[in-house]
Amino acid sequence: MSIINVSDDRRSITLLSPTDMPAASAFLWNSSMMMQVNCRGYATAQFMQPEPAKYAYAPNLEAKTFMQPEQPYYAHHPGRFFYLKDLDTNELFSAPYEPVRNAPDSFEFIARQDTIAWKIQKSRLSIEITLSLSPTRPLELWQINVTNLSEQPRRLSLVPYFPVGYMSWMNQSAMFRPELSSIVCSAVTPYQKYPDYFKQRDFKDLTFLLAESFPDAWETRQSAFEGEGGLHAPSALHQERLSNSDAIYETPTAALQYQLTLQPGANKQFRFAFGPANDHAEIASISNELFGSETGFDEQLLAYKNYLKQSESPLKIATPDAEFDDFVNHWLGRQVFYHGDVNRLSTDPQTRNYLQDAMGMSYLKPERTRDALLRALSQQQRSGAMPDGILLSESAELKYINQIPHMDHCVWLPVCLSAYLDETGDLGILNQPLSFADSDDSLTVQQHIDLALLWLFEQRDHRDLNYIAQGDWCDPMNMVGYKGKGVSAWLTLATAYASQLWANICQDAGRETEAKQFNSNADALNAAVNTHLWTGDWYARGITDDDVVFGVPTDTEGRIFLNPQAWAILSGAASEAKQASMIDAIERDLETPYGVQMLAPAYTKMREDVGRVTQKHPGSAENGSVYNHAAGFYVYALYQAKQPNRAFRLLRQMIPGPDDSDLQQRGQLPVFIPNYYRGAYREYPRTAGRSSQLFNTGTVHWFLRCLIDGLFGVRGTKEGLKIDPQLPQDWPQASLDRHFRGADFHIEIVRKPALKQTSIIVNGERLADTIIRSIDTGKRYSVTVEVP
Amino acid sequence: MSIINVSDDRRSITLLSPTDMPAASAFLWNSSMMMQVNCRGYATAQFMQPEPAKYAYAPNLEAKTFMQPEQPYYAHHPGRFFYLKDLDTNELFSAPYEPVRNAPDSFEFIARQDTIAWKIQKSRLSIEITLSLSPTRPLELWQINVTNLSEQPRRLSLVPYFPVGYMSWMNQSAMFRPELSSIVCSAVTPYQKYPDYFKQRDFKDLTFLLAESFPDAWETRQSAFEGEGGLHAPSALHQERLSNSDAIYETPTAALQYQLTLQPGANKQFRFAFGPANDHAEIASISNELFGSETGFDEQLLAYKNYLKQSESPLKIATPDAEFDDFVNHWLGRQVFYHGDVNRLSTDPQTRNYLQDAMGMSYLKPERTRDALLRALSQQQRSGAMPDGILLSESAELKYINQIPHMDHCVWLPVCLSAYLDETGDLGILNQPLSFADSDDSLTVQQHIDLALLWLFEQRDHRDLNYIAQGDWCDPMNMVGYKGKGVSAWLTLATAYASQLWANICQDAGRETEAKQFNSNADALNAAVNTHLWTGDWYARGITDDDVVFGVPTDTEGRIFLNPQAWAILSGAASEAKQASMIDAIERDLETPYGVQMLAPAYTKMREDVGRVTQKHPGSAENGSVYNHAAGFYVYALYQAKQPNRAFRLLRQMIPGPDDSDLQQRGQLPVFIPNYYRGAYREYPRTAGRSSQLFNTGTVHWFLRCLIDGLFGVRGTKEGLKIDPQLPQDWPQASLDRHFRGADFHIEIVRKPALKQTSIIVNGERLADTIIRSIDTGKRYSVTVEVP
Repeated sequence: MSIINVSDDRRSITLLSPTDMPAASAFLWNSSMMMQVNCRGYATAQFMQPEPAKYAYAPNLEAKTFMQPEQPYYAHHPGRFFYLKDLDTNELFSAPYEPVRNAPDSFEFIARQDTIAWKIQKSRLSIEITLSLSPTRPLELWQINVTNLSEQPRRLSLVPYFPVGYMSWMNQSAMFRPELSSIVCSAVTPYQKYPDYFKQRDFKDLTFLLAESFPDAWETRQSAFEGEGGLHAPSALHQERLSNSDAIYETPTAALQYQLTLQPGANKQFRFAFGPANDHAEIASISNELFGSETGFDEQLLAYKNYLKQSESPLKIATPDAEFDDFVNHWLGRQVFYHGDVNRLSTDPQTRNYLQDAMGMSYLKPERTRDALLRALSQQQRSGAMPDGILLSESAELKYINQIPHMDHCVWLPVCLSAYLDETGDLGILNQPLSFADSDDSLTVQQHIDLALLWLFEQRDHRDLNYIAQGDWCDPMNMVGYKGKGVSAWLTLATAYASQLWANICQDAGRETEAKQFNSNADALNAAVNTHLWTGDWYARGITDDDVVFGVPTDTEGRIFLNPQAWAILSGAASEAKQASMIDAIERDLETPYGVQMLAPAYTKMREDVGRVTQKHPGSAENGSVYNHAAGFYVYALYQAKQPNRAFRLLRQMIPGPDDSDLQQRGQLPVFIPNYYRGAYREYPRTAGRSSQLFNTGTVHWFLRCLIDGLFGVRGTKEGLKIDPQLPQDWPQASLDRHFRGADFHIEIVRKPALKQTSIIVNGERLADTIIRSIDTGKRYSVTVEVP
Repeated sequence: MSIINVSDDRRSITLLSPTDMPAASAFLWNSSMMMQVNCRGYATAQFMQPEPAKYAYAPNLEAKTFMQPEQPYYAHHPGRFFYLKDLDTNELFSAPYEPVRNAPDSFEFIARQDTIAWKIQKSRLSIEITLSLSPTRPLELWQINVTNLSEQPRRLSLVPYFPVGYMSWMNQSAMFRPELSSIVCSAVTPYQKYPDYFKQRDFKDLTFLLAESFPDAWETRQSAFEGEGGLHAPSALHQERLSNSDAIYETPTAALQYQLTLQPGANKQFRFAFGPANDHAEIASISNELFGSETGFDEQLLAYKNYLKQSESPLKIATPDAEFDDFVNHWLGRQVFYHGDVNRLSTDPQTRNYLQDAMGMSYLKPERTRDALLRALSQQQRSGAMPDGILLSESAELKYINQIPHMDHCVWLPVCLSAYLDETGDLGILNQPLSFADSDDSLTVQQHIDLALLWLFEQRDHRDLNYIAQGDWCDPMNMVGYKGKGVSAWLTLATAYASQLWANICQDAGRETEAKQFNSNADALNAAVNTHLWTGDWYARGITDDDVVFGVPTDTEGRIFLNPQAWAILSGAASEAKQASMIDAIERDLETPYGVQMLAPAYTKMREDVGRVTQKHPGSAENGSVYNHAAGFYVYALYQAKQPNRAFRLLRQMIPGPDDSDLQQRGQLPVFIPNYYRGAYREYPRTAGRSSQLFNTGTVHWFLRCLIDGLFGVRGTKEGLKIDPQLPQDWPQASLDRHFRGADFHIEIVRKPALKQTSIIVNGERLADTIIRSIDTGKRYSVTVEVP
């Protein structure tokens, strides 16, 4: 049993029953690294050089793999641990919990914006551990404070143990360097083709543990540290002192030993830095930065805190739902900013992700959105087609999934741009000239986007339905149309919606002819979907190369997909009757206690005319999971369909907890929204709801947009700020602070059931309609919104 | 403390002090898999589909990596374990040792040709475990026998625990299938490019543990099995019964539970099979084969034993050195056959390895050598160049190191062919017609080899030295000549030696003109090496692109290399005076208690004009290790130089043990010769001598050839069997049995110090010279050899 504590700027878990340790995690990042830390002490981290790399490895394999945050934990999982041994009683404890797994007397795991911390008591010792990051470097900053709560002096041995793992089959070693007060573990990134050597020779292949306090002893050999005792009772800790040995082509580790005596009430603090480096000079420079002056370390902590100020939520809300407020006010902006700031630490983000991550950034740093749009469009083909990924550096190249052609990338240009224009009104961007990836022709942004949407409109079959080829939004649905015939209902509807968004922007820019043309294109696409893909109850997902319509009531697996329904609302294809029918079907077939599934029933075996998604485990990833990104589209559509209660219910489900049963089932603290929760609730209730733990997801941008365009209805338009809240029925009021076009708005929404329609009072004056016009930069607006 | 037992057909370790468990391993293979098993119970296995694959994984990563047998062991290392719990005392033990690590009362680890076994006693229980393989399938066959040695009935819970690990991030699950009496774990090999799906869909992605006896309970979830207890005290074993749960997108495991009561003296046997399968039907078929009849399982064991009969040593020897005899008589042929039979379980063996593995096969199955030579030559380029790897199947392609061009592959054609002709006298092969990889021209084998050696002779610089380009024999010396200028002393000498071998064959085939030409080429090459690369004390290793001679007395690292010295003896480049000088230098600078290093001092940092080898850890792999393959060349050369004492001393060092201190230092039983022992003895004595544990090595072919052409001097010639032993000085006699060209020879060698020269008595008749001519198929020859 544990309880989750929510306070202004932190989330924490307090264990009531220490034998029931959850697997909840939190994450930190800076511009060069990211790190996921589990409350047990397990941790994985990646940094860029320039592709993602690791500096602490698993014990057996040096493989470069992606983060895999849902991976199983086990004794040798990478982590950061502090062994503490009472030299009088020989009692051994490890903080925060692993690997000894001795139950603490009290335990709190605390996620803040800029730190992850633990407060633990055990055998009348108090142990406080805090992790933060450098603002810029791939560097972990650790503090541990041990306090004697008893009435006797305590003789203790403290051993910070930072396993480094199997670095390289080619070259690995470690030694303590007294002049650096560091254990330095070295490895070599292997190459076979000699040109790769020149790319890799400046890599940060060293891993170091730098200590402020010179240790009494150390061990650098993983196997000698563990010995026959095992990590829960390391042989090395049976000795009075660690061996001070080097590791010579032996798996390195970093364990330092401090012998200390604490008088009653006394405490002692230790500080460490852990990370990769290129050479000893770099470690010396870091050491000087952190410990060369009294304030160096704290200055770094402050600088990191300041860096994160950029990620403050663009909305500060107060509603009857305190948990919801806390998540929106403290955690949502952070996750949105993370995506837009570091692009999921990739060098070739998928175009779809890149544009949606930029969309969310419209509400925090709109100038970054502008840059991203221009960068993406400058990599467009002259034909209008967008590439599968956007290259962020000279040396970047398209890798993995970005080598598989997907058909939907053009869709996201007007989707991103419309959010940016709503927020900024910056129509000037449309006339910015840009060249192409394969042509020096210089066309304006609006000409680029015309080309993109015309290219997309051309990719249709004889029925006016968009070809899916090897995939659209749903990455792994890669065999529907690889022969060149299959079509996608979602992509056809998305093309229609994107065309309408673009028509609206054309209209605002005074391009009426183009506006008409794109609206007419959208009508043709909507009509085609209604003709060929309405099943009677909902929209099918598509038609395969062999002319099989799928996602239909007669399918036993993959009967109904969420995306075509959501986007048929957005594009206006679905009549009110059709909307009602499909919303009913979604409630019956896709909704679960943990959110709305992306498709159901999940596929349990390969369907060769659909492809990779059907090979994923039922309930996982895109195969019948509660895929929050798709759920976000649907909630956004529900606000468009004026379904405030249903919309808020589903939006709310994306946030985990905070009750213990939800923590135990989802395995996650409410500090981020994961890309999915396990689905297949009807088939596998035992595991349904489990968090993927992956914080890379476009979900958060749609979550934020749902708040702005839907729930609170504080959306920008060409004319100003349009106010049109859709509070859930049971909320009598809500308030929010919002910065918009240089001005600050404090908005109080109150329910007046007697009213016929929403009415707005700004700085004491009641408006004639619901738009606040002619906004003055720097001014503060006090707004009261009366809703029926 | 442990002792090593050597008996006729097995090697075993008996532990005297059970707290000092070594890491010794043994290996088994069949035509579709190989498996390395450690005495603690750790195990790794690979099978072909068609590329090497795994069916039991590490817990955290699904990465496909090579075997890495020297990797560190840790609690979650893959293995096969049998937990045994006394239900009356609750005492928990695991056999053979891991993961509980409770010291056994007695412990024996036994490697035989066809089985790996343990005999253990603990708390008055006797536990015998035996592993064998299917003769053809990737399938492990396990037997465990538990006997009650006490005077009371014993109530026991036996839990075979075969961890399967993290199979796939995409799809993994497990369940017990009662109709198969098996735990079946399923995974999906992921693809991103859809054509890969069609290559992978018939993969054996299931892993199963099949039990002869239906279990009382089971657990399929790794995390639930381990729980908070850890593998040394699994939480699942605190319960009376395992949970019988399925694993649903959870890391699978295979744990079965048997409750049994054994009366005093009673015993019970359990049998299992473990391996990969494509579908349930395949598991059912295996189940029927093994357990469908009373004799099925034993028939498979016998069939595997029979398969291995092919690997019997081609020499049976009796010398004053019993350990040496045991290794040669029981283990050497097995390792030679392994290479020639399954080509290290690769689909594109390096041409160099393929031809040397075929060379060793000359002494066991010469028809296989013939096939390999013809296959290799049929993949030759019309220019004469040989490819970097030989493709063994239609779908195979050159991968990894075989994408890096190496210059030496042609050398190995006459090296392999000369051994084959010595053994068979099959000069007919020379007239076999063959086409080329890039041409349908049909030329005879001898024309092919003419082309190969002329091509090699053309690859010279203005000094008549052979270009090294991106590498020669030593794979990772890849930056000496990548700009097209650098040259190799070794390759020049190897070209000279290969040309001489070929000249001799031409001579035997009556091609005197060609013989003269190739001998003259060899002379030119030898002269060039003597002119440009003799340092005064030894031969340098080469000259870089930038005209730096390296491997010379003024180098502080990589001063002296073994290979140029060895091959200067073989090619005749080295005068007697030069031989004496360099042999002295080798003894001083390269010899160690564990063998002779390939270079010294080992590089400690990257030398950019040499390349990859200098990035390897000092003392490991090719960087200053005791690289047995190179040592084998040198020993072969020492026999050529008539240095029998020195040659035998170095040959003998390749075999580990059998004393305990050697076992502890090298970490290996004398059941195979590893590719290297750690070197850098002068710099890192603590770790020097450690076995790489890798049984893939061309060493064994040269070891065998040293016995035949050198130590016992029983080499074939065109005329017959030439007898010319070079026993070490302190051997008064030796005897051997040898099968040669269809006849059996029993040869007794006796030292007669009074003699001036060797004298041969065959079936009672003294020969005029040392060649036994006109050998009759099927005849038995009794030979006495009197040596001075």
